[in-house]
Amino acid sequence: MAEGVEILCVGTELLLGDILNGNARWIAQELAALGLPHYRQTVVGDNTSRLIAAVQEAADRSRFLVTTGGLGPTPDDLTTEALAEAFDTPLVERPELWEEIERRLSAGGRSVAASNRRQALLPVGADVLPNPVGSAPGMIWSPRPGFTILTFPGVPSEMKAMWQATAAPWFQDNGGSRGAFRSRVLRFTGVGESTLAEQVADLIDSPNPTVAPYAALGDVTLRVTARADNAEAAVALLDPMEQELRRRTGQQCYGVDGDSLAGVVLELLRSAGETVAVAESCTGGGLGAALTAVPGASDVFGGGVIAYSNRIKASILGVPVAALEAHGAVSDPVVIAMAEAVRERFVCDWGIAISGVAGPDGGSPEKPVGLVHLAVAGPDGTEAAAQRFGDRRGRAAIQQLSVIRALDRLRLRLLART
Amino acid sequence: MAEGVEILCVGTELLLGDILNGNARWIAQELAALGLPHYRQTVVGDNTSRLIAAVQEAADRSRFLVTTGGLGPTPDDLTTEALAEAFDTPLVERPELWEEIERRLSAGGRSVAASNRRQALLPVGADVLPNPVGSAPGMIWSPRPGFTILTFPGVPSEMKAMWQATAAPWFQDNGGSRGAFRSRVLRFTGVGESTLAEQVADLIDSPNPTVAPYAALGDVTLRVTARADNAEAAVALLDPMEQELRRRTGQQCYGVDGDSLAGVVLELLRSAGETVAVAESCTGGGLGAALTAVPGASDVFGGGVIAYSNRIKASILGVPVAALEAHGAVSDPVVIAMAEAVRERFVCDWGIAISGVAGPDGGSPEKPVGLVHLAVAGPDGTEAAAQRFGDRRGRAAIQQLSVIRALDRLRLRLLART
Repeated sequence: MAEGVEILCVGTELLLGDILNGNARWIAQELAALGLPHYRQTVVGDNTSRLIAAVQEAADRSRFLVTTGGLGPTPDDLTTEALAEAFDTPLVERPELWEEIERRLSAGGRSVAASNRRQALLPVGADVLPNPVGSAPGMIWSPRPGFTILTFPGVPSEMKAMWQATAAPWFQDNGGSRGAFRSRVLRFTGVGESTLAEQVADLIDSPNPTVAPYAALGDVTLRVTARADNAEAAVALLDPMEQELRRRTGQQCYGVDGDSLAGVVLELLRSAGETVAVAESCTGGGLGAALTAVPGASDVFGGGVIAYSNRIKASILGVPVAALEAHGAVSDPVVIAMAEAVRERFVCDWGIAISGVAGPDGGSPEKPVGLVHLAVAGPDGTEAAAQRFGDRRGRAAIQQLSVIRALDRLRLRLLART
Repeated sequence: MAEGVEILCVGTELLLGDILNGNARWIAQELAALGLPHYRQTVVGDNTSRLIAAVQEAADRSRFLVTTGGLGPTPDDLTTEALAEAFDTPLVERPELWEEIERRLSAGGRSVAASNRRQALLPVGADVLPNPVGSAPGMIWSPRPGFTILTFPGVPSEMKAMWQATAAPWFQDNGGSRGAFRSRVLRFTGVGESTLAEQVADLIDSPNPTVAPYAALGDVTLRVTARADNAEAAVALLDPMEQELRRRTGQQCYGVDGDSLAGVVLELLRSAGETVAVAESCTGGGLGAALTAVPGASDVFGGGVIAYSNRIKASILGVPVAALEAHGAVSDPVVIAMAEAVRERFVCDWGIAISGVAGPDGGSPEKPVGLVHLAVAGPDGTEAAAQRFGDRRGRAAIQQLSVIRALDRLRLRLLART
């Protein structure tokens, strides 16, 4: 039997890549929060026959279809007419809609064009889905038993206002959702997606809560999603799964949901009453930028030195020229000197230093592109190590991974102490 | 007859609304630039039967199918297997792929998991679509005459690298586009989208080349697209339109295509044989990071000081405590002192300083969130000014706009001199 909700976004601007499909994402989030199953999204252009084909296919697959776009007054706004044609249903003018459109346009000081009259047409049997903030109303229409269409304009602010005022309550009453869904994202670093997935392989097969891995650069997440009769019961299912995942993965899990690695590090420092400064070469300020991306960083983050050239490493940070000459800028002795110098000169409890070969040029057989040395100097001494990120992912990735690994080294030092 | 290109994005994270579908937009832009007709985009989750159904439908409608996602090593990465099943084709292990995966993982210091082995499987008859930057290769496969599938991973950096290296040239040879399309993006800063659009309103109506505006944070672009019988003729149409657009907009246009504002500033400095250092407060290293995002910045960019706290502004940069007390850290006298100090201490020709209220906290009636003071010190003196970005766009936007405006002030100083 047909089930679930599909989203159909109509607009040639989407097919040309002029805009991101933020509407599909927003509606998808709303459907997830309502616990409504959602299996497919489609985008078509402003073309009647392709629009009709997409709607008829959706009618055979799904219980509800949410459309965005194509409700305006211009000739390329085709959605309502195409839907009526798809189900051989005549359009009729709704006098109350026409009055409302007239009223709104003249209140806005705009003249009423004949083309606006088209917006008062709806298929016979459709209910109006009111638009509280714009001139393009939508509809809620069941052209055949067990299949209902809800239409929205493409303007995000209008679509969202209509959704919240009418569609969300309507889905709560009519969506047939079985229970409530709640999810939580666990965030990991220092572990690859496949290794993490193997550590928790049996839990990934779990039916409820489900566990799904997802990987981004330097960061892997596990999304835990629980379904239950109500929200409290769903949350109660999340907690033991989170505990089990944390038990297996230990300190690789650095946070949940919106946590950032920099934010977690700042919070650990804050609760210890400690401060940090940075000395950056190949990241050029990226580590400082990551720390100051977090609001309220100023009580913990003092600042730092961007020592991009060797001259600056020596003159501003006092790295011994002998060390630079003997070991090169990308070496443990140099990052140790940088971390200790910035810690001392900025009068902070911790100093982090990064020096590496970000590429694409500047690599050598001994010091290839992707080689980065990191040091963390603290109250209990200084530790340094090399990381090899390889030369394939490019300069931006090497810089970003250097920042992530540097933050994580400090995180692990702080955790090891407690 | 089946025609056009469809995009199929695979990933439950898209159906849950966890992420925006930036891949579909990027590929759509590329298809438009190649002059390939594109009529439909589809999103399905990590589900074999729904994925197979979507692919079979696309095969009946279109000439090419581009997929993203589902090529990773975890059990929910199903795309290659589902495609093989959709066309009743067995999978075979490609030894060269397996060697490459093994080599890459061990070079990155990661252990090779058994699950990585799945990534070496491709349907019989498929060609490898190489992944120069990651471990998940794609394929180019024609499972039936007149229908070809190209698969890409969901990680945007990998997808884009594969597209540019292999798929774009492949489509130029095999896409059957009628005529050649060529486009050029002109990049602007310091001007709003609507103001720019008004300056060139008549050209936006031009049929060939077309001119399309697009706005991102701190950056507005005009994409000029020309169609002609061949590539040279298309490029020949672009040049006069670019000249006319530049004539009308003057120094607001800072570059074309892949140019970055930081890269343009570095190049101006390089050709003058000059160097720059930075002193950053509210951007915390973001200006240095923007400059060092550009490969080869080291001959021009010396480094800088992240002076996040007032203590550091005074102790490391020597900003007079009297100036900090009389005017506050967010003031012209303080950014002037910062810019001049970093220029002098780092022995560079130019010094840039930024100090502002990035929020969300820390604002006051006199110094609201979004107020940022910028200074540029150079061989011909120091200039400072305040920018007001407002408090509505948030901390990250205020930081990013501060970096852009600071770079642009230096760019305009450098241009004014010539």
